[in-house]
Amino acid sequence: MSRYWNTRTQNIVPYVPGEQPRDRKFIKLNTNENPYPPSPKVIEAVKNAANGDLRLYPDPDSTAFREAAAAHYGVKPGQVFAGNGSDEILAFAFAAFFENVDSRGVQPLLFPDVTYSFYPVYAGLWNIPYRAIPLREDFSINCTDYRIPCGGVIFPNPNAPTGIPVPIEDILSLAEYLETQNKVLIADEAYIAFGASCNEVSRASCNEVSRASCNEVSRASCNEVSRAQSAVPYINKHPNLLTIHTMSKSASLAGLRFGFAIGNEELIEGLRRIKDSFNSYPIDRLALAGAVAAVNDWDYYNVINKKVTETRDRISKELRLLGFIVLPSAANFIFVKAPGIDGVNFFCALREKGILARHFNKERTADYLRVSIGTDDEMNLFLAACRELIK
Amino acid sequence: MSRYWNTRTQNIVPYVPGEQPRDRKFIKLNTNENPYPPSPKVIEAVKNAANGDLRLYPDPDSTAFREAAAAHYGVKPGQVFAGNGSDEILAFAFAAFFENVDSRGVQPLLFPDVTYSFYPVYAGLWNIPYRAIPLREDFSINCTDYRIPCGGVIFPNPNAPTGIPVPIEDILSLAEYLETQNKVLIADEAYIAFGASCNEVSRASCNEVSRASCNEVSRASCNEVSRAQSAVPYINKHPNLLTIHTMSKSASLAGLRFGFAIGNEELIEGLRRIKDSFNSYPIDRLALAGAVAAVNDWDYYNVINKKVTETRDRISKELRLLGFIVLPSAANFIFVKAPGIDGVNFFCALREKGILARHFNKERTADYLRVSIGTDDEMNLFLAACRELIK
Repeated sequence: MSRYWNTRTQNIVPYVPGEQPRDRKFIKLNTNENPYPPSPKVIEAVKNAANGDLRLYPDPDSTAFREAAAAHYGVKPGQVFAGNGSDEILAFAFAAFFENVDSRGVQPLLFPDVTYSFYPVYAGLWNIPYRAIPLREDFSINCTDYRIPCGGVIFPNPNAPTGIPVPIEDILSLAEYLETQNKVLIADEAYIAFGASCNEVSRASCNEVSRASCNEVSRASCNEVSRAQSAVPYINKHPNLLTIHTMSKSASLAGLRFGFAIGNEELIEGLRRIKDSFNSYPIDRLALAGAVAAVNDWDYYNVINKKVTETRDRISKELRLLGFIVLPSAANFIFVKAPGIDGVNFFCALREKGILARHFNKERTADYLRVSIGTDDEMNLFLAACRELIK
Repeated sequence: MSRYWNTRTQNIVPYVPGEQPRDRKFIKLNTNENPYPPSPKVIEAVKNAANGDLRLYPDPDSTAFREAAAAHYGVKPGQVFAGNGSDEILAFAFAAFFENVDSRGVQPLLFPDVTYSFYPVYAGLWNIPYRAIPLREDFSINCTDYRIPCGGVIFPNPNAPTGIPVPIEDILSLAEYLETQNKVLIADEAYIAFGASCNEVSRASCNEVSRASCNEVSRASCNEVSRAQSAVPYINKHPNLLTIHTMSKSASLAGLRFGFAIGNEELIEGLRRIKDSFNSYPIDRLALAGAVAAVNDWDYYNVINKKVTETRDRISKELRLLGFIVLPSAANFIFVKAPGIDGVNFFCALREKGILARHFNKERTADYLRVSIGTDDEMNLFLAACRELIK
């Protein structure tokens, strides 16, 4: 504590990002980065921008990106907002749409008890009251639990760190309910690009789940796991539905810091008002050029992301055959429980073998590790380490 | 207004950044960009970083930069904080050190009535009460006016948009007073690199100021204008003194988005706590590499910034001979009043001739324009336009 810190600075509990090792070489499966490189067109665009006018401020509205994304997603440029990673956009969204504790008649913001651990941190930063709604026993989100008076709702689809998608019909029906309260529903679609093959592949691998590992993940919900589906096509019908996206995972650009939101113009304008009260130009000329190139070369990304989902489904299947519990994931990571080993020991054993995963030491997640999907070679090493572990 | 915006979003008055023209070619003297290109080593470093691991998150602590800056400034890495432009750091600093209206016994933050127009916006964003302290008649900051019970003090040195520096002794003495109240003094040193030649050159040109143009700027204060001096060497003696810096002006990197703060470890830790509650990685791999290269090639920047200050002093002198009032500037811009022409007409006349300047339409600044210092060629065109204007 310092006598120079105000009340906020003293009280907040900052987010702790996943370890970025600098000295030792790890197989890095702890921060959900894409194992494949970004599109060569992105690198080229960044280098061209480096030769450009770096001495001049960037376009504060990221117009070139908003136009490119609008064309890609079939929306209007005024329905797109660009930010310094989806984390910055989330910070802006909490500031823009959810009331703080001092507001009259304020209701708590709702999000799942097991979810992106930055949400309660944002709530702390802006002093927003919140209530964590428990996931079902099988770790899935039950949207009907959120149909109560509240200040708004946010969850990732697919959820993190579980990887389990939320059926699009449930999201739209919840948006409709919240609309009657003039409240915003944020679908944080950071991992949506990895949901595509879930229907085809995960369902199959779910069916093959061994009886033993189905103890905690009910067979029923496993069978019901659906393709993760973006809410973007529904933003015109649901003016209170904001979708948030990142280039960090599916565009293989965590090092570029670029995220975006798609929603109706009023929501986008709300985000812009906060941005322009915080930092007019959070996106530099290099990141802007790279992001435009990325969205214009999505065919490349479809190929690498398909590889990621295929690896995920293969590894999930193999782990289940070994007796591990693997939640049915529609993301670029899996949430895994080793048989007879708690999360801390699982984490340490992997680390000792040079493999970094992420452990969330909270009640419902303590037995699990979140393991990002790497290349096939990396995941084979991970699989070999798991095999050795249960010997 | 939108029914989805919370109270904050409805009430804030966002900052309006200077125009970034896209269609027409202007002589752009409106956003204080450096007219000379960044160091070639910066471009090279950025391109190398583009070939690196863009798929991986950047170092959330910007360690490489903090070490380079520590070596350059003779401080410790733990006394350096890096952010996405100094604007982001200012936003974090307001969040970290100044209490909001709901805090018990809160006193207002103090800053000048004529200063960086983003300060009241930050205060609005974080709901911080503030009081604007009038500049002296000659537009200089009188530090003794700030020796009152308060929540903290912030001003730029040199001040913007006046360009007038604050004597370092006054800053240190104010820091000492505020220290007795456990309050923070922020010296926003965005333009400090252009203060060096002020002593030698501006004093001379001040002496040559025509009687006519001295009507509003007292001769006395002109003579007293001192070299703008950084407070960085005093951060160990004054633990409540935070200096904030940007690469946008003196490092010719407005398009890279990089700023930094230097102060005692407790202040830096306070900024880090807010950053990690907002966005863990606001600086991308490209900007980080470029900023390290920039701080390591400061000899290059000393050369181009000397050119800027020489141009500034030459143009100031010429304008004064024409009867314009030019405040004695230690920055990379001048604050200018045309004889017998109000600010709006001055602005429009320049714009018509393809020259963009910045007009702040407030009571004390309405007659003036802030004109960034461009290349000699650009400034000669500006001077010719001014000559024509008063014909």
